[in-house]
Amino acid sequence: MRRTWLGILSKPVPGELETPSGIAAFEAAQVCPDVRFALREDWGESYSLEKTGDAYAVTGGTTGVLYGAYALIRAIAAGEPLPEGRQTPYYPLRMLDCWDNMDGTIERGYSGRSLWFEDDEFSYDPERIRQLGRMLASVGINVLCINNVNVHQPAQHLTDSLLPEVKKLAAILRPFGVRLMLSIDFSQPMQNGLDTSDPLDPRVEEWWTEHAEKVWQEIPDLAGFLVKADSEHRPGPSVYGRTHAQGANMLARAVAPFGGKIVWRAFVYNCLQDWRDTTTDRPCAAYDLYHPQDGSFDNNVILQIKYGPYDFQVREPLSPLFLGMPRTSIAMEMQLAQEYTGHQIDVYAMAPMWRELLDQAGKEKLSALVAVGNLGRDDNWTGHPFAAVNLFCFGLFAWDPDCDPETAIRLWERLTYNLPADQEETFVSMLMNSRHVYEQYTAPLGLCWMVRPDIHYGPSPYGYEFQLWGTYNRADRDAVGIDRTKKGTGFTEQYPKELAQLYADPEKCPDELLLFFHRLPYDWKMRDGRTLIQRIYDDHFDGCAAAEKMYAELKTLSIPEPDRTEALQRMERQVRNAREWRDVTNTFFHRFSGAPDAHGRRIYA
Amino acid sequence: MRRTWLGILSKPVPGELETPSGIAAFEAAQVCPDVRFALREDWGESYSLEKTGDAYAVTGGTTGVLYGAYALIRAIAAGEPLPEGRQTPYYPLRMLDCWDNMDGTIERGYSGRSLWFEDDEFSYDPERIRQLGRMLASVGINVLCINNVNVHQPAQHLTDSLLPEVKKLAAILRPFGVRLMLSIDFSQPMQNGLDTSDPLDPRVEEWWTEHAEKVWQEIPDLAGFLVKADSEHRPGPSVYGRTHAQGANMLARAVAPFGGKIVWRAFVYNCLQDWRDTTTDRPCAAYDLYHPQDGSFDNNVILQIKYGPYDFQVREPLSPLFLGMPRTSIAMEMQLAQEYTGHQIDVYAMAPMWRELLDQAGKEKLSALVAVGNLGRDDNWTGHPFAAVNLFCFGLFAWDPDCDPETAIRLWERLTYNLPADQEETFVSMLMNSRHVYEQYTAPLGLCWMVRPDIHYGPSPYGYEFQLWGTYNRADRDAVGIDRTKKGTGFTEQYPKELAQLYADPEKCPDELLLFFHRLPYDWKMRDGRTLIQRIYDDHFDGCAAAEKMYAELKTLSIPEPDRTEALQRMERQVRNAREWRDVTNTFFHRFSGAPDAHGRRIYA
Repeated sequence: MRRTWLGILSKPVPGELETPSGIAAFEAAQVCPDVRFALREDWGESYSLEKTGDAYAVTGGTTGVLYGAYALIRAIAAGEPLPEGRQTPYYPLRMLDCWDNMDGTIERGYSGRSLWFEDDEFSYDPERIRQLGRMLASVGINVLCINNVNVHQPAQHLTDSLLPEVKKLAAILRPFGVRLMLSIDFSQPMQNGLDTSDPLDPRVEEWWTEHAEKVWQEIPDLAGFLVKADSEHRPGPSVYGRTHAQGANMLARAVAPFGGKIVWRAFVYNCLQDWRDTTTDRPCAAYDLYHPQDGSFDNNVILQIKYGPYDFQVREPLSPLFLGMPRTSIAMEMQLAQEYTGHQIDVYAMAPMWRELLDQAGKEKLSALVAVGNLGRDDNWTGHPFAAVNLFCFGLFAWDPDCDPETAIRLWERLTYNLPADQEETFVSMLMNSRHVYEQYTAPLGLCWMVRPDIHYGPSPYGYEFQLWGTYNRADRDAVGIDRTKKGTGFTEQYPKELAQLYADPEKCPDELLLFFHRLPYDWKMRDGRTLIQRIYDDHFDGCAAAEKMYAELKTLSIPEPDRTEALQRMERQVRNAREWRDVTNTFFHRFSGAPDAHGRRIYA
Repeated sequence: MRRTWLGILSKPVPGELETPSGIAAFEAAQVCPDVRFALREDWGESYSLEKTGDAYAVTGGTTGVLYGAYALIRAIAAGEPLPEGRQTPYYPLRMLDCWDNMDGTIERGYSGRSLWFEDDEFSYDPERIRQLGRMLASVGINVLCINNVNVHQPAQHLTDSLLPEVKKLAAILRPFGVRLMLSIDFSQPMQNGLDTSDPLDPRVEEWWTEHAEKVWQEIPDLAGFLVKADSEHRPGPSVYGRTHAQGANMLARAVAPFGGKIVWRAFVYNCLQDWRDTTTDRPCAAYDLYHPQDGSFDNNVILQIKYGPYDFQVREPLSPLFLGMPRTSIAMEMQLAQEYTGHQIDVYAMAPMWRELLDQAGKEKLSALVAVGNLGRDDNWTGHPFAAVNLFCFGLFAWDPDCDPETAIRLWERLTYNLPADQEETFVSMLMNSRHVYEQYTAPLGLCWMVRPDIHYGPSPYGYEFQLWGTYNRADRDAVGIDRTKKGTGFTEQYPKELAQLYADPEKCPDELLLFFHRLPYDWKMRDGRTLIQRIYDDHFDGCAAAEKMYAELKTLSIPEPDRTEALQRMERQVRNAREWRDVTNTFFHRFSGAPDAHGRRIYA
């Protein structure tokens, strides 16, 4: 049995258990001899736990009993008190988007090949899929979109000829409260005999309506369709001069009779920008497109918005779209796969970042929390053994967006490694600090995109500079950054007034976003008295030193094997790469600015 | 029949013709009714032509008669006088290296897929291979290395289990005077049961000796083996602490009994360089390695040296190795495939460059002329229809290294398009000037490597800057380039004294190599009074304008279809790309230097 954080469970879930309550009873019995279950069907996903003497009582809805059982197991294993009162997930949709291609590769996957696809077919070990279901259920994740939002053939056939196979997979995960979702291609009608996929053409709507009927007939609890349209060369409604609301609503009407959702990604921008064009500014794109359509999406459409206005960078301001779509169901999209955040080579615990983002957005504005997955066929599921913390915490945040990051990280550590108290402190603060460290040695002051194009890892401060992606820092001998205030591209104006004013004033703008919003000379005086260029140098020296310190600390921890060796090997690479990042970035800015380091440290010519 | 420059020949060569003399008679008869052939076996590849009234006489050796027939056809078709006296090729080895992989791809190929490999097997149209043989013979190319110097599996089996297939291909080309060569992997013994490929281990030598015997038994006229060893992660003798001479000579002894050659590539450098290391300088690598070994290579080893010390850049000085290996058989390696020279999108006729290089090297120092091929399965063989001029001219240069580039280009034009006289002038001068134009808009003053890594096309002035390839320009706010004089890396010292002095003095160094040899400030005064930065700007504006002018001129020419449309489409892309190169490069240097353009032209911020 491949390990998850639930090391306390020693037996695989028997294949004959086909209901959440059956699984709940089996799991709980592995941990405590006396657990009584009470099924309250109207409770749905909710549960409550009670302890009387040595006996426990779990009351819960159909899947609530299962969530209750896992909550009980977590609390017992971590030595923590039971949650008080009835527990209900804040978001009904808690989804993982898996970018798995049917050829077995995973787009931006760093944990091996797909867990369920290979050679353009379904190909999996059912035992491992059950283990996956257990892992997701144990942190409350209830929807799994199994195929890449970039729908490469033959994945279009997941909704027709491959449907019986999807059905089988759904059946394995159903007892764990996990429903499937499928990514579809907006132009699918055109692969099936129609000459258009215009959402206002009655034949198109009819095609989707019939299509949805067939799909839900096979899998009545399918969660819905995920759509990447008009984005990075994917087809969409704009081809026909239609709005995204028109496109999404047409699909929404087709799936509504079955309780299906349309999750519509808001990741739309001009990916063929001319770098000479300084008026077009990619961060403005999504708000410009969607804000005017607020209120025009059907009820069962969820607009899925990446957390920042760019694309999963280490540091971005919250996308202004979260504050500009009050009459639309919206989801925040996180990315567990460490695309721009270290490829699961570098340690990068995301919970502290999510805390910031959710606090800024306001949990009540969202209808769902979604994350791009970081799972693959590697023995440890997530490539880097510590990357599992992100999947774990994501589940907890989606259940309770008020989740405290340190508490969640500590809980994962206790369930997974259960280190001695002093080591736990070291390890938890290593993880808590890991994003800051990575940010320091990679991405100065919110600049973004200083990584190698295509692979999105490793220092390449000018790699994106003259490309088509709308991702520039425009560094020259005097200054760096883009003026995104009213006097520049006007991006700050997409925020509510107070935030707009904060971001627009370089004297007040948070340091870590200074170069996201402003173009500033190298000798700009920061609030702490340092020059901008000195701050860039300092961050890179400090970040690299912090990575070296992490590595030294990790060596002192009694992480069990094989995780210890695996983590040490990866962190050795992290440290080596951090040095490269430090030196390349400092040299790059030194060559432009000519400014010496105030502390005389080595900056290479 | 797919077209070559020999448009005057209307019939395919019948399959039953199996000797050069038979083919010669058939070909000549298509053009003139009265040609007599006299075979003089001792003449080998030589021939002489005579005209008496309307009758022609071709006297020649075994393949000489064939070369004579094609020379006759060329002269008649182009309306030129017959060459006088006995014609003998200057270099006995006139070879094309084809970087074809057995999966059907061609490394750095821009003309479609392999002509003879597909799906890890031989796969070809014999008729087309005969046409290829005719094309090569018509310009005197006599050796074809059919597989990539990077020997990917299953290409190692070309010398064992696939040998019968190689034999079949050899048989098709033999009547055209074309012998095959095979690229081998230095570690091949280790794929066949030995635990070493140490060239001084007797078992290794024995293995190769037996292996060669088997190979030549099947194909007695095989030209030899081509070896890329100790280069870009390929195995080689250095693994065992042996010299390249020891490695090459061991192989040379194995093939010597059969008259085989070992062609040993001198493309060896540290491809894992740390950019921080300013003492290691890639152009120094080959001379440092091979010069001390001069005189220690066996007679049947040919050291194959790329024309410049880097790697087929638009402008490099001649590799100093050509002037430093007087006691070694050496070949100059050209590259018809336009890897760094325009991907067969941009027009780039190479003959003028070869003239410069051969004049500098001195033809008598060389034993062979070799070129990486530019052929593929495209209907027109070379992707861009005008790229055929490079294959054509290469054959002529290898036969006669005193070849005049303009004469050769004009001859190709007459044989291929036979344009009206005024158009011929326009077209020939377009081709003659094409390298200069490409150089102007892409590569300032010999800097090299300002292209996108991996693909080697398109502007990316800092793309290689922090990579492992030893390819840096080290541009900063004050200066650009690398000091390769005694005070710098010392590369100039590898040249004979006079050249070393010329290159080492920035006041005397040829403009087009100025930044290859020197690091200079942007305000450096060029001999014509312009500043260095102004010259960079001017070249890019001028080069782009010249590309636009070429495009306008091409539209006026009556090139026959489908070449006209194909060439116009490609040149439209060339012009678009030239603008991108101009703007990116000028912006890059403007951002560093801050210098305005003296003529107030638009340089983007």
